[in-house]
Amino acid sequence: MREIAVAGAGLVGSMLSVFLARRGYKVTIFERRADFRKSGGYGGRSINLALSSRGLRALALLGLDGKMREKALPMYGRRIHPVAGSEGYMPYGKEGQCIYSVSRSALNQVVLDAAEEAGVQVFFNSKIQQVDLKETQLQVSVDGGPTRVIKPDYLIGSDGAYSAVRAAFLQSDRFNFSQDYIEHGYKELSIPASANGQFQLKQDALHIWPRESFMMIALPNPDASFTCTLFFPFEGATSFAGLKTSDQVKSFFEKTFPDALQLMPDLLNEFHENPSSSLVTVKCYPWVKNRTLLIGDAAHAIVPFYGQGMNAGFEDCRIFNELLEYFKDDWEMVLPEFQRLRKPNADAVARLALDNFIEMRDLVSDPVFQLQKKIESRIHELYPERWTPLYSMVTFSDDINYADAYQTGQRQKQIMAKVLSQPEIAKNWEKLDFLSIAEQLQTP
Amino acid sequence: MREIAVAGAGLVGSMLSVFLARRGYKVTIFERRADFRKSGGYGGRSINLALSSRGLRALALLGLDGKMREKALPMYGRRIHPVAGSEGYMPYGKEGQCIYSVSRSALNQVVLDAAEEAGVQVFFNSKIQQVDLKETQLQVSVDGGPTRVIKPDYLIGSDGAYSAVRAAFLQSDRFNFSQDYIEHGYKELSIPASANGQFQLKQDALHIWPRESFMMIALPNPDASFTCTLFFPFEGATSFAGLKTSDQVKSFFEKTFPDALQLMPDLLNEFHENPSSSLVTVKCYPWVKNRTLLIGDAAHAIVPFYGQGMNAGFEDCRIFNELLEYFKDDWEMVLPEFQRLRKPNADAVARLALDNFIEMRDLVSDPVFQLQKKIESRIHELYPERWTPLYSMVTFSDDINYADAYQTGQRQKQIMAKVLSQPEIAKNWEKLDFLSIAEQLQTP
Repeated sequence: MREIAVAGAGLVGSMLSVFLARRGYKVTIFERRADFRKSGGYGGRSINLALSSRGLRALALLGLDGKMREKALPMYGRRIHPVAGSEGYMPYGKEGQCIYSVSRSALNQVVLDAAEEAGVQVFFNSKIQQVDLKETQLQVSVDGGPTRVIKPDYLIGSDGAYSAVRAAFLQSDRFNFSQDYIEHGYKELSIPASANGQFQLKQDALHIWPRESFMMIALPNPDASFTCTLFFPFEGATSFAGLKTSDQVKSFFEKTFPDALQLMPDLLNEFHENPSSSLVTVKCYPWVKNRTLLIGDAAHAIVPFYGQGMNAGFEDCRIFNELLEYFKDDWEMVLPEFQRLRKPNADAVARLALDNFIEMRDLVSDPVFQLQKKIESRIHELYPERWTPLYSMVTFSDDINYADAYQTGQRQKQIMAKVLSQPEIAKNWEKLDFLSIAEQLQTP
Repeated sequence: MREIAVAGAGLVGSMLSVFLARRGYKVTIFERRADFRKSGGYGGRSINLALSSRGLRALALLGLDGKMREKALPMYGRRIHPVAGSEGYMPYGKEGQCIYSVSRSALNQVVLDAAEEAGVQVFFNSKIQQVDLKETQLQVSVDGGPTRVIKPDYLIGSDGAYSAVRAAFLQSDRFNFSQDYIEHGYKELSIPASANGQFQLKQDALHIWPRESFMMIALPNPDASFTCTLFFPFEGATSFAGLKTSDQVKSFFEKTFPDALQLMPDLLNEFHENPSSSLVTVKCYPWVKNRTLLIGDAAHAIVPFYGQGMNAGFEDCRIFNELLEYFKDDWEMVLPEFQRLRKPNADAVARLALDNFIEMRDLVSDPVFQLQKKIESRIHELYPERWTPLYSMVTFSDDINYADAYQTGQRQKQIMAKVLSQPEIAKNWEKLDFLSIAEQLQTP
């Protein structure tokens, strides 16, 4: 029975371990942090996650989608909060299509419990001190104890954006690597349930306060609270650096998020206490050196604006499992094929995630963009085989490659730019020849 | 007297130390390697360098250009070796313009000797174990001795493409970083002097054997030998991986570099003994964290195909010195201004260096490209104020920013593409209206 060591008991490490253990591998996970199920604290990034079709497909394969749904809330669209005036609404897809708001820790528990049930051994408080890629060997200290040398048949680096396994790749020759921070950071805030335990905003959607150069969002939780995230520049006139005193924070929220401020009794405390965290895109290649593999955020960390980081990681696991099946567990075939297949998709979703920040913070409040969405969803309704909007290809498909979705999205953008440039389009859009628009996509 | 710690006694660290020591700073260099002047071995990259105007300007400011010239050989152009047929020649610039072939160790000795003469203290065999960017503090072990804690006023990381100081930047938040390897590596070979001590190829030029997807070059040395460098893919049909046995190497050289093979009696031995080294581009930002600065290759390592890596590093030193002068040694002004000024130029020269590989290995043997060079140098001759070829802006100017040179080069390329598309241009080029071509560059 081949032995697999997995670095990281996060979402991807845990899920991949379930797949591997169920295939009969002896899997051991080494996790740097304490067991969040016991300690209560979840040390990871805690942005609420938006689970969509790719993630769901992988969970369903493992029979875990039901457990996830118990802890998740469906969101059918975006509810848009202008500074003044009434809330707008943009559905994500067709009637009934939704993404799921779920806390990272709740979802992590689902996959980690399943890993242990499948016989995976998990060592928490494990510090990886050294990784030897030539010998496929790692030195680990568990609970501050003496260094143990582990010699698995294969090592999986699923230890996130700041991967310790990847650090060994960086020491090796000819490893391409980039990390790029955006100028915005994020800070978590909250909207609690009302005194009688009710949601204070509609719970069926992701709420956005788009403010062009920055934004706040809110995702519903099962306890009727909302987790808010302010995405905001670190430096400059309007920035974390510029909001220092409680008076500054309060008057900024009064001016910028007046409706939300009403619902945030603990704002000042949270604003001062919660960290302003950075947002990074990590790209690298190869993902495989000898018998060690990088996967998930360790291979391709992205910014959170498309809600695809975890979904892409879960899709990694599903595809890795399919390759094991296809190549009859011949890892020498699986490893190179996995990185060859997945790298272009990881690059594409990284771009999509960066682009979507602009869409969320700026375009969603633009009437032309709203019209474009309306026209595209009409085309999709009429000719679903010919035209699927980019958002739906990324979010509601579980088999269109990210790279193909990106390419098709670029062509759609060009076609729609021409459509939208027609005079009086806002008035006349219902009279468009939707079929001929859809056909343009087929004949590039 | 402010104390400056410099990591690395290479070209840039040594030169910057001369500038700083002469301004009155107390400068200490920590160099990982042994003193190459004593040990005889030079552990650094040993591609021969091509010193051009930017490097010369910095050396001349320090009065070191004379010493350099004693050890260098002028190269006035490229001598191009086809597989069969006679050698071609392309001058680099105008009559008399040249670049200098000099060994890295000879040039390093010039600047390092000057640093010691200026009172700089140099510790060799110094391992930097830790860098604390917040406290501007480093832990160093010299000659394997106990760890010393150094607390300089400012720390300069001039420790090359694999900088240990930069490793501390990588641990810090919001540091953008990329390292990109090209698919080619390089291997050093040699053409010795003849039995009676003569050059076996013309010594007034850089020799190129362009072979489209790869190339070999040769630079003259004062001892009448040539240092050859084969730039060659690591993997694939024609690659280092594909040339394993002596028979394979020999028959490849017979077929590909028949004239050179005649002059390389030690080829097989060198081919097997010398490493195949990789070629990387490093970009990062910021270059300054608190009171620590990255400079030279540590901030912006590039591939060697434009011969500008060292020239860019020496230009860094010259400009850093000018900023100290301008801001009256106020480092809080100098450091941010230095990175702001230099970053776009570092990015530009990185692109130029990558582009020039294609020019060297492929285009130099293309008749259309040769014609373009001829036309451009005619325009430059007639209207030197209006049109300077890209190569000359990069190589023979010491005051045109790399970024400006790159931009102008892009416009020149567009203009020349139109010129070269004219029918019968090879026959009629002398009848072109050179003034009107030159004027197009002024009115973009």
